[in-house]
Amino acid sequence: MSNVYKKIELVGSSRDSVEDAIQSAVSKASETTRNLDWFEVDEIRGWIDDGVVQHYQVGLRVGFRVDDVANDG
Amino acid sequence: MSNVYKKIELVGSSRDSVEDAIQSAVSKASETTRNLDWFEVDEIRGWIDDGVVQHYQVGLRVGFRVDDVANDG
Amino acid sequence: MSNVYKKIELVGSSRDSVEDAIQSAVSKASETTRNLDWFEVDEIRGWIDDGVVQHYQVGLRVGFRVDDVANDG
Amino acid sequence: MSNVYKKIELVGSSRDSVEDAIQSAVSKASETTRNLDWFEVDEIRGWIDDGVVQHYQVGLRVGFRVDDVANDG
Amino acid sequence: MSNVYKKIELVGSSRDSVEDAIQSAVSKASETTRNLDWFEVDEIRGWIDDGVVQHYQVGLRVGFRVDDVANDG
Amino acid sequence: MSNVYKKIELVGSSRDSVEDAIQSAVSKASETTRNLDWFEVDEIRGWIDDGVVQHYQVGLRVGFRVDDVANDG
Amino acid sequence: MSNVYKKIELVGSSRDSVEDAIQSAVSKASETTRNLDWFEVDEIRGWIDDGVVQHYQVGLRVGFRVDDVANDG
Amino acid sequence: MSNVYKKIELVGSSRDSVEDAIQSAVSKASETTRNLDWFEVDEIRGWIDDGVVQHYQVGLRVGFRVDDVANDG
Amino acid sequence: MSNVYKKIELVGSSRDSVEDAIQSAVSKASETTRNLDWFEVDEIRGWIDDGVVQHYQVGLRVGFRVDDVANDG
Amino acid sequence: MSNVYKKIELVGSSRDSVEDAIQSAVSKASETTRNLDWFEVDEIRGWIDDGVVQHYQVGLRVGFRVDDVANDG
Amino acid sequence: MSNVYKKIELVGSSRDSVEDAIQSAVSKASETTRNLDWFEVDEIRGWIDDGVVQHYQVGLRVGFRVDDVANDG
Amino acid sequence: MSNVYKKIELVGSSRDSVEDAIQSAVSKASETTRNLDWFEVDEIRGWIDDGVVQHYQVGLRVGFRVDDVANDG
Repeated sequence: MSNVYKKIELVGSSRDSVEDAIQSAVSKASETTRNLDWFEVDEIRGWIDDGVVQHYQVGLRVGFRVDDVANDG
Repeated sequence: MSNVYKKIELVGSSRDSVEDAIQSAVSKASETTRNLDWFEVDEIRGWIDDGVVQHYQVGLRVGFRVDDVANDG
Repeated sequence: MSNVYKKIELVGSSRDSVEDAIQSAVSKASETTRNLDWFEVDEIRGWIDDGVVQHYQVGLRVGFRVDDVANDG
Repeated sequence: MSNVYKKIELVGSSRDSVEDAIQSAVSKASETTRNLDWFEVDEIRGWIDDGVVQHYQVGLRVGFRVDDVANDG
Repeated sequence: MSNVYKKIELVGSSRDSVEDAIQSAVSKASETTRNLDWFEVDEIRGWIDDGVVQHYQVGLRVGFRVDDVANDG
Repeated sequence: MSNVYKKIELVGSSRDSVEDAIQSAVSKASETTRNLDWFEVDEIRGWIDDGVVQHYQVGLRVGFRVDDVANDG
Repeated sequence: MSNVYKKIELVGSSRDSVEDAIQSAVSKASETTRNLDWFEVDEIRGWIDDGVVQHYQVGLRVGFRVDDVANDG
Repeated sequence: MSNVYKKIELVGSSRDSVEDAIQSAVSKASETTRNLDWFEVDEIRGWIDDGVVQHYQVGLRVGFRVDDVANDG
Repeated sequence: MSNVYKKIELVGSSRDSVEDAIQSAVSKASETTRNLDWFEVDEIRGWIDDGVVQHYQVGLRVGFRVDDVANDG
Repeated sequence: MSNVYKKIELVGSSRDSVEDAIQSAVSKASETTRNLDWFEVDEIRGWIDDGVVQHYQVGLRVGFRVDDVANDG
Repeated sequence: MSNVYKKIELVGSSRDSVEDAIQSAVSKASETTRNLDWFEVDEIRGWIDDGVVQHYQVGLRVGFRVDDVANDG
Repeated sequence: MSNVYKKIELVGSSRDSVEDAIQSAVSKASETTRNLDWFEVDEIRGWIDDGVVQHYQVGLRVGFRVDDVANDG
């Protein structure tokens, strides 16, 4: 039997690192979506203030197996 | 505390202009989603009839801050 | 009156063919979403075991007309 | 029975707007090609003189159903 | 002596498969153009009705050697 | 004698239209740079507030002939 | 302990289908490389003769876990 | 009055250089098309025999002003 | 009143991390440019010596509001 | 005398960071390949379990000077 | 201590060759900018007159080490 | 019987021209690999010293028919 996956597009942010920004998006998604399986980074951006990086912002897609396309993510 | 954003992918259409097609998608999304923050245009297409452009169709991503990934967008 | 469409990003899989993988994603989405209209293939991948392709995995976007952005897809 | 479509690549220009530049290309193509069906914008460029945009130039593909591949477009 | 080739952009469609959609475009082009040599797939899309894929649409470029650029394709 | 051109990357914004956003960037650049010649649009984005597009933001490259690479743009 | 994977770039061909072309490349690679794990399709092309597709050619990357980077693939 | 341009996609070849391959395509197109204006290189490829490059093949688009979309190129 | 932004393209480097490489470019730019606002990562590369990564090099665009296009960045 | 370089495509993984994933691939390649010179990151992905990132996977190309194309990498 | 590099985007032109067009841009940039280090070709275009290529135009990025981001390039 | 091809990724360099850089990579590959068939240029870069291009560097893929995937290239 074939599986179907869905991807949702998120932007996570962190003051500290690219990795933390990824985890922040994954954590938020996992509050309401089961079966999170993988992520793919689309872009890395960030905000600067007074010559210092204030936030890393990482755009990513998070994929998960769907039992029901409408109820997830 | 770090924010997380979600992007949804829409296609708006208008008989009149690219800008109206963007607004039509944004308006529809705002009926059910709070906190719409920004959009990014992905593609501009349209339909022709009898040598005249009938509809502009603009594919765009709309981003918004999520309180709850599943309930928005 | 202008229509608005939404695209969701899915990955369908099949042991047999690219076409079956596309249909598997479309079928799953149609269980809960009305008005599915078109699809666009983004990527074709797959898993190999013992020198034989085991699954085709096709990433695609499925578009549909929205009456209500939040309730669909 | 399956349809076949052809795309031709045009650049329309206008002093006024992106939309007019699209329509100028569509109008010219419709003088000699039947069944123009849709367009896809590839690029938006333009010429500047004395600090003012003089022409918008929009590269686009125009698609149409072919009865005879050689005679159209 | 060097050869020159031309590419034309077509969209073939089929109810059955990606391969049939490619062949439908190649067949139509070959009715009026000699020397068709190769194709390159640009995109795979399709239409859905009632949760079932109705048509595969494959955008492709077809290349052929030109004796006369204006008379072919 | 061969000419050399330089491109600078700008983002113009406007409450009204894509065209105005382009012109705003061109106008600002022309205050201090001579010989602005052409532009190429890279991206179209914008900000939304309360379900309404507030600003179109157009990323573009502006090209101009250089007499002196360091002093321009 | 972290795994390392290597990707090699192949082109498989088949008279019959895209899927057969993929399998032909996977089969050839598996003759000499252990642990083939996944593939990613990069391009679909083909050769035409007398108005009929003669060969599908599928460019793909094949990934596998490496025990020894030099000895595989 | 606005001008409309058309682009056709060609592949020129040469035993000697990229520039000769470009010129070979431009020369062939100019036999039957008036007003050739500019070209844009899309890809540079070539054939090898016995460890020596035999032909450079340059894919390019050639643009020209159209008086009549159907009769040119 | 509409704002105009400029983007400059930099490459920062660091022995330690991607984040440090980004900050090194931002710090250098902030010595002479006011109002640095955001960055966008274009590429991540690096140099290897004796099997160990010696430097991460991150290509990025840094954006800032311009009061005067020529004097900044 | 001109140098020739070869690039091989690897995927490194790490539980901890993007940088560790890069280094893991570089280390594995350096076991069997001399003269590793630089890397270019192609993609950043990863696996999630129970709402937590389990592995960062970084796809990269590693370049090195070749004395003998067949014996390296 | 980490180095920072800047890239500027130029278009060089030449009646003779792609290489001359590159060198024309590099020469012009070197009149006012120290430390030019490398270039990356972005696009190759050109102008045609009477069926003959008149100018090759090569878009490129030129990179250099910055001591002072504002004063260079 | 279907053929399988492999592509390897090389960077050739030359003080003189893009064509020489391509040939340098092809020559090096042909020392150890039979059946080199075609190449595809991926990128053109180079190094500058004292305002003069010192080396053209051309990244390319070289394709060849494989009898044995592991022993070639």
